[in-house]
Amino acid sequence: MRAIDLIAKKRDRESLTTDEITWLVEHYTQEDVPDYQMSAFVMAVYLNGMTRKETADLTLAMARSGEQLDLSDIGDYWVDKHSSGGVGDKTTLIVLPLVASCGVPVAKMSGRGLGMSGGTIDKLESIPGYRVDLSADEFKQLARDNGIVLSGQSLALAPADGKIYALRDVTATVASKPLIASSIMSKKIAAGANGIVLDVKVGRGAFMSNLDDARELAQIMVDIGADAGRDVIAILSDMNQPLGSAIGNALEVKESVETLSGGGAADLREHCLMIAGFMLQLAGRGQRWQDESAVRALLEEKISDGSAVAKLRQMVVAQGGDGSVIDDVTQLPAAKHRHVVTAGQRGVIHRADAENFSRAAFELGAGREKKGDPINMAVGVECHVKVGDGVEVGAPLATVHYDNAEKLQACLHWLDTAFEIALQPCLPLPLFYEIIRSDR
Amino acid sequence: MRAIDLIAKKRDRESLTTDEITWLVEHYTQEDVPDYQMSAFVMAVYLNGMTRKETADLTLAMARSGEQLDLSDIGDYWVDKHSSGGVGDKTTLIVLPLVASCGVPVAKMSGRGLGMSGGTIDKLESIPGYRVDLSADEFKQLARDNGIVLSGQSLALAPADGKIYALRDVTATVASKPLIASSIMSKKIAAGANGIVLDVKVGRGAFMSNLDDARELAQIMVDIGADAGRDVIAILSDMNQPLGSAIGNALEVKESVETLSGGGAADLREHCLMIAGFMLQLAGRGQRWQDESAVRALLEEKISDGSAVAKLRQMVVAQGGDGSVIDDVTQLPAAKHRHVVTAGQRGVIHRADAENFSRAAFELGAGREKKGDPINMAVGVECHVKVGDGVEVGAPLATVHYDNAEKLQACLHWLDTAFEIALQPCLPLPLFYEIIRSDR
Repeated sequence: MRAIDLIAKKRDRESLTTDEITWLVEHYTQEDVPDYQMSAFVMAVYLNGMTRKETADLTLAMARSGEQLDLSDIGDYWVDKHSSGGVGDKTTLIVLPLVASCGVPVAKMSGRGLGMSGGTIDKLESIPGYRVDLSADEFKQLARDNGIVLSGQSLALAPADGKIYALRDVTATVASKPLIASSIMSKKIAAGANGIVLDVKVGRGAFMSNLDDARELAQIMVDIGADAGRDVIAILSDMNQPLGSAIGNALEVKESVETLSGGGAADLREHCLMIAGFMLQLAGRGQRWQDESAVRALLEEKISDGSAVAKLRQMVVAQGGDGSVIDDVTQLPAAKHRHVVTAGQRGVIHRADAENFSRAAFELGAGREKKGDPINMAVGVECHVKVGDGVEVGAPLATVHYDNAEKLQACLHWLDTAFEIALQPCLPLPLFYEIIRSDR
Repeated sequence: MRAIDLIAKKRDRESLTTDEITWLVEHYTQEDVPDYQMSAFVMAVYLNGMTRKETADLTLAMARSGEQLDLSDIGDYWVDKHSSGGVGDKTTLIVLPLVASCGVPVAKMSGRGLGMSGGTIDKLESIPGYRVDLSADEFKQLARDNGIVLSGQSLALAPADGKIYALRDVTATVASKPLIASSIMSKKIAAGANGIVLDVKVGRGAFMSNLDDARELAQIMVDIGADAGRDVIAILSDMNQPLGSAIGNALEVKESVETLSGGGAADLREHCLMIAGFMLQLAGRGQRWQDESAVRALLEEKISDGSAVAKLRQMVVAQGGDGSVIDDVTQLPAAKHRHVVTAGQRGVIHRADAENFSRAAFELGAGREKKGDPINMAVGVECHVKVGDGVEVGAPLATVHYDNAEKLQACLHWLDTAFEIALQPCLPLPLFYEIIRSDR
């Protein structure tokens, strides 16, 4: 087989066979196929697309390109979740302990953030002592002992995906739905998930800004799951305004603890109950947890009786973190100063722009521009209003947690244009738009 | 400027500005833009095309990427020719001396062959002593003194084209008409041509197998010429059967000498008179040589009075070659053995397949598979018939000049299926299909 012939096939809108895609991914991973051939191939894929079968083949080839997590000796069905990334999205920190507290084990490898905000792993590092660099053995041991573990990538999962993604990033070929979908799903499959809940964000603060694109991407991922023998539920959720209130690493951990303890913003709580509910539904495999209201009652009980937050505390302590931080969130890193942004007019919130909040938090130092850059754990922004809320003049709209007056100014530049207040009424934004399930 | 933004523009079917194309070519030549970005760009060009303006901009940027031949102190208007490559195509060897013998100076840098047959430079090396590695100064001196010089690339013309072509060759992006056209024209422009006659071959033995594709390619090159301030005439000529009789390096030199001396195959003579006539027409710049029949009479006179072949001899001697070889072509390298292929039935020739002849000659060792491979100067095939000719059983169709019995067998494999003979009548193939001129 020759790479040039496979490039020519895709260039001419033909479909590649399973063997051809497997060959290409294997030889690219081994560096027998050079970057300049792979970049021509991915541009041809960007412009000519891939069939459902090709997309599934690519996903599986990437999933098999490196180590794969095998937890089958501890449990025979594993559920995982993935978010396409949003502003104030601390769902994993809440949903994992909540699901584990219901007796469904969860073992997740998560990523660091790049761009505007920290990733789940970055957020967890705001807890003193918390180790995200577990060995594969430690990871498995904790999954067995506690039914919950949340670390960075302890295994080299889907290295082909990492290599292809890095190439797409510099050749203007990121925004291809089959390539995005196969990238996400290859890592989930390599991580051993049998059931996957996909949280696909739509709106101003998300990668997909319109519903049609998000639906198409979600459907491709659900189809990949079906073709790869995995159960997938995709939720199209709103990302026009921040999820919950907090944006920033320690601030988001604090809000997560509050939510697990029965507090937190209503939209965040509702969002997490929905994601956790679908995870239970998948774990029940048609036998248990099919009754939505019973599932919701169970989850609410785990929150109100303290089981959920106790599970978080157990996970933190097991991974070397200071458990007292969970008991008293004021021990988390805190910024030196606060600044409150207030409403200049009375009316109804028509817009609280997620992208503006994201850029505002980035200006404070909450995210990283490039791999390896340090992150300020303490800084961030809290958003106090949601679209549809009424406000009076002087009402607090946002609180900035900052260390540095210059960075505050850069942050306020974005917050000043984040809100739109008008006298006309405005409906609240929906939390979810659609649910897409696999047909298997 | 960033390469990724230019890739994205072409990916999205937008047009690049002159500055953007110039930037990309310059930075790729300097290796600031890596191969993997350029290959994504050329795939986007392959699939989305380029406008006339973009194509001209790319051509000029590549032409300016290295040294440029400047002969303006010797003459103020230079004519050149280019052939898209055909089987038995020795036109340059005949046309250059012919045009020079009419007092129009010609100074051409030509290439080596890759693939099925030798290039002009390879063919000339079958003349003992002939130097194709002239320095730029020697090249210019001969142009001035003799009005004729024909060497390899004495200057690093259009290095960007060489670099981009090598990349296209391994990324399935060769067959893009704007890229082919700009590649050819960039070298002609860097070589200082004011007027260019393009011989675009169409048919079984050519890169373009159908007339529509050849016409489109020719029109793009004529347009580039017009936009770059050059006069261009493109001729779409037949390449379904070999041009003339000989295929092979020394055999083609022999046939060239014969044609310049008034002999040679009728189709080859006619083809060369036409190309040479258009070169004179361009050199006359609307003042001289506009009368086709007068031009033809002049060219025929230069052949019949011996001026044309004398000019070839002068060039050979000036470049260190043995002039007596031109007086007596039996001194050229000759193969050890001959084998004659004869007609198995009587009838009319319906096909004498150029591609089969090309492969047959290659099997004997007349071409090279990869850069630097040696070429056997002596071997080759002569084709004795043309489509439309009547033959009796046992009539000679082709003569193989070979050194090695095993290679003869491989050669005959291709010759056995090269001919189609049937009882029905068949018209001869046209020599030319169309003439396309620049509109400036």
